[in-house]
Parts: sequence; C-alpha cells; structure tokens
Amino acid sequence: MNWLLADDIIKKALNEDLYYGDITTESIMINNKNASVDLIAKEDGIVAGLEVFRRVFIILGDAETEFYVKDGDSIHKGEKIGKVYGSAKTLLSGERVALNFLQRMSGIATLTKMFTEKLKGTNVKLLDTRKTTPNMRMFEKYAVKIGGGTNHRFGLNDGVLIKDNHIDAAGGIEQAIEMVRSNAPFVRKIEIEVETLEQLKEALKFNVDIIMLDNMDIETLKAAVKIIDGKAEIEASGNVNLDNIEAIAKTGVDYISTGALTHSFKILDLSMKNLRY
Amino acid sequence: MNWLLADDIIKKALNEDLYYGDITTESIMINNKNASVDLIAKEDGIVAGLEVFRRVFIILGDAETEFYVKDGDSIHKGEKIGKVYGSAKTLLSGERVALNFLQRMSGIATLTKMFTEKLKGTNVKLLDTRKTTPNMRMFEKYAVKIGGGTNHRFGLNDGVLIKDNHIDAAGGIEQAIEMVRSNAPFVRKIEIEVETLEQLKEALKFNVDIIMLDNMDIETLKAAVKIIDGKAEIEASGNVNLDNIEAIAKTGVDYISTGALTHSFKILDLSMKNLRY
Amino acid sequence: MNWLLADDIIKKALNEDLYYGDITTESIMINNKNASVDLIAKEDGIVAGLEVFRRVFIILGDAETEFYVKDGDSIHKGEKIGKVYGSAKTLLSGERVALNFLQRMSGIATLTKMFTEKLKGTNVKLLDTRKTTPNMRMFEKYAVKIGGGTNHRFGLNDGVLIKDNHIDAAGGIEQAIEMVRSNAPFVRKIEIEVETLEQLKEALKFNVDIIMLDNMDIETLKAAVKIIDGKAEIEASGNVNLDNIEAIAKTGVDYISTGALTHSFKILDLSMKNLRY
Amino acid sequence: MNWLLADDIIKKALNEDLYYGDITTESIMINNKNASVDLIAKEDGIVAGLEVFRRVFIILGDAETEFYVKDGDSIHKGEKIGKVYGSAKTLLSGERVALNFLQRMSGIATLTKMFTEKLKGTNVKLLDTRKTTPNMRMFEKYAVKIGGGTNHRFGLNDGVLIKDNHIDAAGGIEQAIEMVRSNAPFVRKIEIEVETLEQLKEALKFNVDIIMLDNMDIETLKAAVKIIDGKAEIEASGNVNLDNIEAIAKTGVDYISTGALTHSFKILDLSMKNLRY
Amino acid sequence: MNWLLADDIIKKALNEDLYYGDITTESIMINNKNASVDLIAKEDGIVAGLEVFRRVFIILGDAETEFYVKDGDSIHKGEKIGKVYGSAKTLLSGERVALNFLQRMSGIATLTKMFTEKLKGTNVKLLDTRKTTPNMRMFEKYAVKIGGGTNHRFGLNDGVLIKDNHIDAAGGIEQAIEMVRSNAPFVRKIEIEVETLEQLKEALKFNVDIIMLDNMDIETLKAAVKIIDGKAEIEASGNVNLDNIEAIAKTGVDYISTGALTHSFKILDLSMKNLRY
Amino acid sequence: MNWLLADDIIKKALNEDLYYGDITTESIMINNKNASVDLIAKEDGIVAGLEVFRRVFIILGDAETEFYVKDGDSIHKGEKIGKVYGSAKTLLSGERVALNFLQRMSGIATLTKMFTEKLKGTNVKLLDTRKTTPNMRMFEKYAVKIGGGTNHRFGLNDGVLIKDNHIDAAGGIEQAIEMVRSNAPFVRKIEIEVETLEQLKEALKFNVDIIMLDNMDIETLKAAVKIIDGKAEIEASGNVNLDNIEAIAKTGVDYISTGALTHSFKILDLSMKNLRY
Repeated sequence: MNWLLADDIIKKALNEDLYYGDITTESIMINNKNASVDLIAKEDGIVAGLEVFRRVFIILGDAETEFYVKDGDSIHKGEKIGKVYGSAKTLLSGERVALNFLQRMSGIATLTKMFTEKLKGTNVKLLDTRKTTPNMRMFEKYAVKIGGGTNHRFGLNDGVLIKDNHIDAAGGIEQAIEMVRSNAPFVRKIEIEVETLEQLKEALKFNVDIIMLDNMDIETLKAAVKIIDGKAEIEASGNVNLDNIEAIAKTGVDYISTGALTHSFKILDLSMKNLRY
Repeated sequence: MNWLLADDIIKKALNEDLYYGDITTESIMINNKNASVDLIAKEDGIVAGLEVFRRVFIILGDAETEFYVKDGDSIHKGEKIGKVYGSAKTLLSGERVALNFLQRMSGIATLTKMFTEKLKGTNVKLLDTRKTTPNMRMFEKYAVKIGGGTNHRFGLNDGVLIKDNHIDAAGGIEQAIEMVRSNAPFVRKIEIEVETLEQLKEALKFNVDIIMLDNMDIETLKAAVKIIDGKAEIEASGNVNLDNIEAIAKTGVDYISTGALTHSFKILDLSMKNLRY
Repeated sequence: MNWLLADDIIKKALNEDLYYGDITTESIMINNKNASVDLIAKEDGIVAGLEVFRRVFIILGDAETEFYVKDGDSIHKGEKIGKVYGSAKTLLSGERVALNFLQRMSGIATLTKMFTEKLKGTNVKLLDTRKTTPNMRMFEKYAVKIGGGTNHRFGLNDGVLIKDNHIDAAGGIEQAIEMVRSNAPFVRKIEIEVETLEQLKEALKFNVDIIMLDNMDIETLKAAVKIIDGKAEIEASGNVNLDNIEAIAKTGVDYISTGALTHSFKILDLSMKNLRY
Repeated sequence: MNWLLADDIIKKALNEDLYYGDITTESIMINNKNASVDLIAKEDGIVAGLEVFRRVFIILGDAETEFYVKDGDSIHKGEKIGKVYGSAKTLLSGERVALNFLQRMSGIATLTKMFTEKLKGTNVKLLDTRKTTPNMRMFEKYAVKIGGGTNHRFGLNDGVLIKDNHIDAAGGIEQAIEMVRSNAPFVRKIEIEVETLEQLKEALKFNVDIIMLDNMDIETLKAAVKIIDGKAEIEASGNVNLDNIEAIAKTGVDYISTGALTHSFKILDLSMKNLRY
Repeated sequence: MNWLLADDIIKKALNEDLYYGDITTESIMINNKNASVDLIAKEDGIVAGLEVFRRVFIILGDAETEFYVKDGDSIHKGEKIGKVYGSAKTLLSGERVALNFLQRMSGIATLTKMFTEKLKGTNVKLLDTRKTTPNMRMFEKYAVKIGGGTNHRFGLNDGVLIKDNHIDAAGGIEQAIEMVRSNAPFVRKIEIEVETLEQLKEALKFNVDIIMLDNMDIETLKAAVKIIDGKAEIEASGNVNLDNIEAIAKTGVDYISTGALTHSFKILDLSMKNLRY
Repeated sequence: MNWLLADDIIKKALNEDLYYGDITTESIMINNKNASVDLIAKEDGIVAGLEVFRRVFIILGDAETEFYVKDGDSIHKGEKIGKVYGSAKTLLSGERVALNFLQRMSGIATLTKMFTEKLKGTNVKLLDTRKTTPNMRMFEKYAVKIGGGTNHRFGLNDGVLIKDNHIDAAGGIEQAIEMVRSNAPFVRKIEIEVETLEQLKEALKFNVDIIMLDNMDIETLKAAVKIIDGKAEIEASGNVNLDNIEAIAKTGVDYISTGALTHSFKILDLSMKNLRY
C-alpha cells in the first residue's frame, strides 16, 4: 500500500464531506471535549481496511483508534471491533468518511471470501480485474487480497494483456506478440486473451506466459486446458459467479478472474455507536 | 455538476490506470491511427454519466464521442448507445476508466429507478444519503437524480442534521436546537433525527423544519405522522428496501431515504466493441 | 473551519512569499538559534484568526505560539497579545504571512463589530455576502462571525437564491420557484430577491422561505415588511453603511446584509516586535 | 504575470464558490442557452484585471468576453466597459468570482492612482510592499503597476532587505552586510532599513544599494537625504498617506512605499447587468 | 508515455522558472508580437524528447513547433532540427525549460546509443535501472528506449526483484521466493540478484524467471551462464562501461544493465537561435 | 531552502517509484520489524543533500537518520557517513529515492568543488546557470553553493538579464535598457549580455550593473575588462571547463559561469549497506 497516495485520497474524501466544515457539530460543540465511540459490526463478514479507517481520524485531528480485530478476521453482528477516542468534534465529523471506506473494503473482502471458499481444496486462485471504482483501486485490490484473492494488474502499465482489439491493430496474433516482445518493458509477463479454440492454438505457437480463456463454457474450457497442456498458465474469465466457479475450477485452469468482486459488491454494515464523554 | 472538480477526479482516475502508460497498446500501436468503437448495452437499465464518459476521452486526447441516448433514458441489452472515434490509442487506453465511471453511475440510476417506480402515484420523494463512495459523491448523487431521486445533503456543510450524539453533546434536544439556531449559517434548514415517539414529541416543541424518523416500523411511522400533523416535513430512514418502500410511503411521510442507492448497487453492464479503422 | 483546506491555503501563501527561500534570513542566520518575538496590537480593535496565525508557524517549522487573548476579544494599541518562540529563522521568515492573515481577519472582525454594535437591542442580524476575496472566504466568513455577524451562503451550492436573471431565465417568478422546488437538493431554504413591491407581492404567492429586499429605501422597506407580514423571513440588502443601518433595522426586517464587511475593510494594524534570543 | 499560476488560483476560487455546483442556476437553467451580459462601472476609477476576469469565464466554460476599455483606463459611473456572451449558465455561475477579482484589482489600481497623482511632477516613485492578501500577491502587485506604482519585492527570495531583527541576529550592521555579501545569490541588490540618523551613518559605511528610511518625520528625512548625498538610492517608508505623501516626496527621497495600497483599499464597484438571450 | 503526468511535470518546471513571470521579457515585450526561432544542434548526437519540447510551448501559450527530424534520428552540429513560432514572449520565456528537457533526454539517448552500438551483432539487450533523476523517470526511460535500450522496472511496484536485504529478511532464498509467490500480484516475473556462484546454485533450485548476476568478473559470468544453462533469463549488472560491455556481452548473458545511462550522462548541446519577427 | 516545496518534490519522487507500493518488500516483510542500514561512500567527493536524504525517510514513515558528516565535507571511498534506522520496510522502500537525490546533489557539489579549487587565490566567483534539471533547481543550486559556487538567478523572475533576442525586440541596447528601467520591479540589478567589444562599448553607455561577456576568447576578455574599467561587474560565460577556467580568471573578470555544473555532472557513488535487525 502506498500510504502517501492513500493519505491524499483520504484527504480529498474528507474535503468532499467537510468542504466548509461540519455545521451541526461546530454549532453544538463550541467547547470541544474528549470522548470515545465504539465501532460495531451490524452484520457478519470479513473486515478489511482498519488502517484506512484509522488514518481518517489521524488526518482529521486529535483522535486515536484501537482495534480488537485485524484485517481478514471474521466479525459478527453486534461485535465491538474497535474504539475511537479523542476530540469529540473529530469523532463526529470523521465518522461518515471513515465508515464509507471501511464498509466498502469489508464488503469486498466478504464477497471475495465467499468466492475463495468455493475454491478451497483446489490450487486455483481467484483474480480481481481493473473494473474497480475510480480512485479506489488501491483500497479495493487490497481488500480482495484480504479476502483471499490474488491481484491481477494494478494498471495498464504493469503487465501485457493482448486483447482482440490489439490483435486487430497488429494484424494478427503473431505480429501482436512480436511487437510486444520488441517494445514492452523488461520483466513483463505476456498474457493473451482468446475466445475460441482456434485462437488458442494460434496463440500457443508463440510461447506466451499466460492465456486468458474468455467467456468459454465448461466443455470448451476443458478442451482448452487439454490443448494448452502445461505450456502456459491459464486464466478463465467471464460470467463467473458463486454458482459456477466450482465447475470452472474443476476444468483445470490455474486462475479464475471476476470483476464482480469490485464492481457489484454490497457494503458490510458497520456503525459507530455509544459516544461517551 | 462542478466540472472543474469532475475533471480533476477523472484525471486522477486515468493516472491510477495509466501511471506509466499502457504498455500493451503503446507496444503495438507504434503508428497511431484513427478508429471508432461502439458503446453497447449488455443489459437493460437506465443510463447515467454520458458526459463523464465523454470527458475521459477528451482529457486523454484526440477522441470524440457521439451518443444515441441521453442520461435518464432506458437502454436495452444489445443496444448501441454511442460511438467513440479518434486516436486508436486513446480509444484502447481510455476504455476501462470511461466504463468504470459510466457503469457505476448507470447502475445507481437503474437501482434508483427501481425504487422511484414504487413511489409512483404518491407525493413521496426518494432521498439519497452521504453513504457514497469516497470522492465519487458528485457523480453518485447526480446518478440518483437521473434515476428520479432527490438529493439530501452533499456534505456536512450544507444542512443541519441533529443526531443523538449531538443531542447528548448539547445536553438535550432543546439545547441542541438553540445552539444550532445561534451558530449555524443563515439559510439552513434544521433537521433532527428521532428514534422514538417520545423524542419526536420533545423535538416538535422547538419548531424544526424537518424530522427524520429513524428505523421505525410501519405502525410507529403512522403514529409519528399523526403526531407531527404537518408541523414539519417528515423523512423516514433505515432499512428501506424494494419490498417495504411502498408500505412506508403509505404512512404519510414526505421523504424516504436509503443509503443502498449508493452503497450496494450493481454496475450496469456496458461494453465497447467493434473497433474499426 | 475545514483545517485541511485551511492548511493548503496557508502553505500556498507561504510558497508565494518564500518560493526559493528567504535570502536575507538564510544569509545571516547560518547558525539557526531559538528566539522569541512578541505579537503586539498597534491600534484598537477585535482580534480574529489567532489559530490561523499559529498554523503558519507550525507549517513552516519549529515554532510555537502563545496567546494572551482569544478570538473576539477587544485588543488595544500597545497591548502584547501573544508570543512566538522557536527557530529564529522560522520567526523571521513566517512573520509577514502570519500577519497578512491575522491583520485581515481582525480588520474584518473589527468592522463587523462596528456594524453589529449598531444593531444592539434589536433582533436584527447582520449578514455577510459572497463578495469575499478569492480563496479567503473561509477565513473572512469566520472573521465576520467573530465580529458578531451571521454567515449567509458559503457558496453557490449551499442555498437557493433566485435573482432577477434567474427569474428572466425561468420566464417568471412562479416558474423559477417551481423549477427550484423540483430540482434543487433537499434541505435547502429558498430565498428570492425582489426590487419592487410588485415583485414582492408576486413572490409572496409561492411560499418562499426568505425574501431579500434589494436596494429599497426606508419607506419602501417599511411597506414591504408590512406586506410580508410574517409570511417569510426578510433580508434587507444594498447600500448598507454605518450611518443608515439603524434606520434599516427599525423597519422590521430580520436580517441586513452588506458586502462591505469583506470587500472594503481596513486591516487591523499588528506587528511582531522584540526579537530576543 | 505567470498565467499558469494565475489559472490555478482562479480555479481554486471557482471551486470555493461552486464546490458542488450552483444549485439555483442548475435548477432553473435545465436547458442551457446562450446569452450576453454587460459589465458596467458603478463608480469612477481605474480598471485593472480585465484578463483575469476573462480567464474566469474561459476556465468555467463556453463564454467569451469583449472589453471596451483596457487596464489602466479611467472608467466612469454607468459606463459599459465590457460584455460577456456564451452559455447562460456560465455567465450566471461565474459572475461573482469574476467580479471579486476585477473589483479588488480595480480598487487597488484606483487607490494607487490617487497616490501617484500626488507625485506628478517629481521623479519619486511609489512602491508597494509584501503586505498583500495571501495568494493574491501576483494580482495585487499587477494592479499597483497599472495604477502607476512600482513593484518592490515579490517575495522574500528576490531581494535582500536587512531589518533590525537581522542586524541583531548578525551582531551589527557591518556583520549583517558582510554575511549577505558572502551568502546571498548573485544579482541581488542590498537594501537596509534604518530608523535613526545614527544607524544611517553606520549603514552608509558599507556601500549598500538602497537605504530604507523607516518612520522618519519630514525633518529627519531631509537630514537623511543630505547625509546619504547620492551614495545610495533612498526609500521612505511608514505612515504614508494621501495627505503627507507630497511633503515626503519633497524631501528628496527616490521612492516612497506604502502597504495601504494592498491592505486597506476599497473595491471599485462594478456589476454585471442586462442578461439577454 | 502518460501525457497527463508529463504535462503536470512540465507545468511545475515552468513554474520553477517563471514563478512571478519573466521580468526581462515582460519589461521589453510590452507589445507582444509573433516571431519564429530555430532549434539548432550544437553537437552530434541522437535526439529524443521532441514532443516534450513541443508541450512546453503549448502549455505556456500561443506557439507551435515544427520539427525536421524525429526522436531517434542522428543529428549533427549546426543542423537546424526544428522551428518554434508564435508569441515572441512565449518563445523567449519557454526557451530554457524546453531546452532543459530536450537536452537531457537527447543526452541520455546519445549515451545509450553508444552502449547499444557495442552490442550490435549480438542478441544481448541493454537495460536501464531505477537510478533516474527524481520526477524525471518517465522522460529518462523513454530516452533510453529511443537510444536503443530496453526498460527495466519503472517502479518498485512493477516487478519482483529479490536482493540480498530481502533474502536476509526472509531467512533465505527459498523463503524469500516462497513469500513472493504467495503474496506478489499475478503477472509478475520474479528476478533474483546473486553475487556468487553459490547463491546462484541455490537460486536456481526455485525456478525464478530472471537471475541478475551482480558485479561478477568476466570469468565468473561465464561460469554462471554455464550453470544457468537456459533455466532462466540472465541479467549482468554492476560496473558496466563502454570498454567492458562487449566482453560482458560475449559471456552469454541475455541482458546488461547500467545506471550510468541516467545518472552520469552529459546533455546534448542544442540551442534556440535566429529570432525573427 | 523552501522545505514546503522540497517536501512536495520528494513526495512526488516517492510516488514515482512506489505508486502501487513495493511489491517485493511488501511480499516478504509481512511482519515489519526495525532495522538499521549504513550509508557508505563508494568514491571520494563532497557530500551535499543530507537533509533531503533524511526527509525521504521521514516522509515515507518511521525511520530516523544519523549522519557522521555534514554537507560540504570531503568524504572518502569506504567511509561510513551515516545510518538510517527504523521500520525495515521504510529502509528498503526508500533507499533508491533517497540515494537518487543525495548522489546527484553530491555529484554536483563535487564537480563544483573541482572548479572552485581552480579559482583559489583569486577573487573570482564561480556562478551556476538556469541549465538545471526540471524541478530539481532548488536542490541543484543548493549543491552548487555547498561546493563553493555562487548562485546566479533562481528563475526568470529574479533578475534582469538582457540577451540579444531582447535587444532585437526592443530595437537596440538603449531602448532595451530604458524599457527595463521603466518596467522591471524595484531592487533588480540589470545585467546585459554582449558578444563583441562593439556591443560592450554600446552597453557601457547606459550604466548597467553587470555585463556578461559571452563566448569571448582570452584576449578579447582581457580587452573587455580594460574597456569596462570598473564601471560594471563582469561575468564571463561560455565554454568554461576545468582546463581554461584559470586563464579566464586571470583576465580580471569578477564572475565565471558554467552550465556544466548542473547539466553534465556525474553522480557521486554512495550506497546503503549492512541491513541489520
């Protein structure tokens, strides 16, 4: 985690909520005092993002945070998982932003865990995608990892992934791979996306590191795995859900990726309660 | 919409994905050329965020966008809703970020529409909350509006909302309201959150503008509406869902708010296809 | 006060003065040492902005500040109101920027106090406007409050204020109000500006929250108050000065606003003296 | 003028006013259309800052500005000095920020002109100071120049000015000047501030470029000029006003500086009127 | 190249040189006019960075640039390689910053070319390092590529490179590789740095993608290549110079890296001459 | 040194290297612990930039730095010059950026020292130029000073330097100087660049502060010094190197400037070794 960048994003989020201050709190808390407030789970799930939650209050001002759990722990409805104490103004004004981060990250970790549970007992790894919320990728990819997933590319700059549009632009698979080998930075693996077995066979001629099998049904996946036969790592992608992931895993692929982890999760419900002076 | 701020957020999102460039595209598209690509709906829903989508390509470089629909329109699976044309590099490198914005905003508009459909025939308005994704609030609140919802507070600085923690801090409802009246900026409405009918009766003594009935069941809501009897506007909040919103609306409240609009939506599936030179 | 934003503005102001350092101080203070310096009033007035003054030295480096007065206090020519101690370089290099903030804020508080003194014994409140110095609004509105004034809108985003140009654009007062009611965010009061009694009567038909009587003479103001007759809050605006504010207050309006508080004030003269090692 | 920096400051000022948009204008101008509006002088003065005014509308969006005067021109009450045309939304939303810049800059130019008029017929030049509004220095110093003044230092980094605190720190005038000569960057003039004739005589021993005579009465100024006798340029400073500046000028000094130009000016009243579609 | 980030860096560089403007040019060019100026090579070399040079003038204002060469071309002393035309102020004020970028990038490309010329006829590729100038990496790595080199990692986030300190921290090579395999993002190659043949043999047990042979003499390099025997790609590093690179290349390694490309180059001398109105 | 700006530049440099974190270190140092590491000279030279090096680790996180030398000291191959201790993650992740600053600054100081050694026994001062690395000027000019050099202009805003292009634009030397005297800010010295003795004689008529003799051979320099005869300070510029600087110094000029100090230096080799837990 790049905390310099994380702090910038947190600051902007605080400005988004507090641009001209918190008029309710400032009107009432003329004489600021110290207080504490509990962080409580309102449903079961996997917690992720505790340090981000803590940073919100550090950046906002004089408040410290104590946790009774750590990222990746299962938490349960009604469980007290932490406490924030310090300036009551900071506690009241920072609550929403801190929860907005923590609830999203925990929601993603919880959903990821549901997927990775399905892969237990296999060697198949669950991958995320770049279908993340703008400016939240660092936090969302971290939450995927906490939920037991593995991170795919962080950005377009850290891995070659040749898709159909690139192949068209290059004039064919061979040309695309050749151009990438000549021009892409050193230490990059080369991954290529194929949609049919014909494309797959073509791609296999050129010694790529990873093959992404896109939107294939179970039978086609099995056939593809047989054709690849250990010559490349295999990622299955497209229409993955909690119902079909086990079947996909059994086809013999190495990785299964799904954008749903970061684009269609629900928050994990958490709240701050019991303000005490 | 503050487009100066929107552009900043879009630029940051592009940097997040393209920090050191797009190594696949740059390796293959040595000789950049012009192309076009279609924007296609992969499921039914309400589209929102077209101008944000367009800005991504304008900010990234030489590409123009044409739309066949406008924000708020119903779109259907398979429908071609727009076209981007210009530098092929820009089309390929900007695709993911542009879709990440548009899919989320359309997902929110679609979910909001499902809620507002339930309120048809009533005068009840649907409100969003501040439970938005950090740094995406402007876009998310806009999408709620496109879906037929009404925006509640944008930030802690644009409306007084007295909650239990504030009441405790002030030493009672009366004191809290008094302090707010003395100290909060002019032109602010005062809203107060109550959880019981007792609190409600106390709050009504002090002539507030809006009363938020938090987490009350249908019967209690009805009783509360009767007690309020037109003396304040009424917002119902807490555990609102597609199943119970009609019943809540019938209790006579003026507004129903739900955080789910922005914290637990699914994206609307859209894609960019048919790259042509 | 949003201190995250305040700190950004202070940092930029320091960069403005110290872009490549302070060549005089750095040439002479090769061996930095600790020192203290007094903050002294050079004329009578109301002090405002002490925390901003303090932040300048904290942001610049190793110096602490002690005050013998607090914001809103009357200070007198020759009075020692504070002391800064720490790195002598910091003291010398930060002096001008720290005073530039404090003198302006105190100047505004002092002028505001002169106006609010005139309103003593009435229930009329003094309002500021958006005629503030670019990027200083947060500090200037705070100073108005310290001087006994009440803040009007912080920005165009936190209150509806319908002016003649809006009415023209909408096609009439009725349409303007209707559009605002449909489209403006929840929890906003609606204020409308009228210049004649005819406009006033028209506006009154539509149940707005606040009516701004713009540039009316005393007699017209009195007539307007009578017509409004408690149906809306009343703000008088335009050509308000220390000579006529009492007369305006007696017309029965609720608020009187003047841009002069922030656009035509004089600084309060303060200085830093008696550097001691 | 550094327009890159100017644009940043203008953008921040627009964000300050429009953080979440302009809710009145956006609610009413659902269908944006083109319009024009006049820029009108409401009192006599010197105009300054027209390009800054223009930039506000360019940055905000689709609007162009035409002027009938240029910076430095005398303008008169009721005179139409320019016109803005383009998107009506842009015209309405940018008005306040554009005027906030232009009115302040014109106010400073007008006040400066009043001072420089008093110096007509002499060779004495009027100087500004670093007592400028935080983050407005570039604009304020430009306005001083437009009003006929001459700019003193822009920041602590662009000129040596040895004050009493520096002399104390160095252990005497001789040591201070010696240290500055050894350590300050090449191409800097050296100026020293003296408060008495004794200090002046001491300072003259060391061949400085400029001597600032601080807070001296007319007789002492005359004596000082005689003592200096052409060996350095002379700046008179302290308690300069429209009543005494002519007398000061006659003492034979080369420059007279006053902070009032930028810290205690009144805006020049201007307005935007006559919106037409 | 990420042009959004490039533009930010260029803007900051312009501010560094022009914070309060260009006082010489602004004093003399009161009436700005159009002009053209030639870009001329003052020594032989490889040009790189032409688009960056062009952006400087675009960002600064109204000036266009025309080039008679393209990045990677050999240019010769006295050759006119381009022309800038437009606002004379922009030409004069932007000259230094534009040349500061172009001369450095061309210096790097020229030095890189000298190295890659030595590798002609081999399959060995020349690699750069992360020993780049702070905030110039994007430009410097681009220049290396233009000079015929291949880019190694852009940042610590885009490739695993296990060094001795990591091995110590992990408790051994095996543990280090294991941890990286479990925790590092997908699509990363794993490179390990070894300093002795013993470390090499140990590393080879764990199937890494790339082995960096650090600071080995020619004989040891040869032995290492024999031991590796095609099981991994090989990078030679440490004390590489124009005299020994051919000998290193003959040892059979795949890549040779040197920090000198970006940390100890000389600029290529270029100038802007022949200003014509 | 403006540390606010320095910190911004350091943060950006850290982001450049660590945008999405340090994947090697984060994968291996799951359980962060404290460690120390030595800073060691790998060749002889002058050290410069120790405080910048320290700031890198402070900004990145929990690490402190201790130095056994100070800026300007001669250091020797193998000498341990400092120690960093704290979070092992911070030590590993910050190493490269910290060294990238320190090695460059020390390289510049070392080269400057080589030049200034040649000037020993004369009164001639060595000047740098604006041919610095974009966004590194503050650090590079500081290093020149540490090496015994004197700083020329920091930016185009802090000194008048009239070059041939300005003279052409003005219509002659006389006009150029006149315009500068009327328009340039107070407290600026005026320097003019001349390439021939004829230009020199013309320039001398107008009482400028400094004359830059550009690209003159030794004999012409001598003639120029004789012509100037104390009427202005003299700077020699162009093609200065370690072989000819003594001869140039003997011509009687006051200053010799060379861009090579900042555009063609080599880094001073330093490394961080001996990580210990």
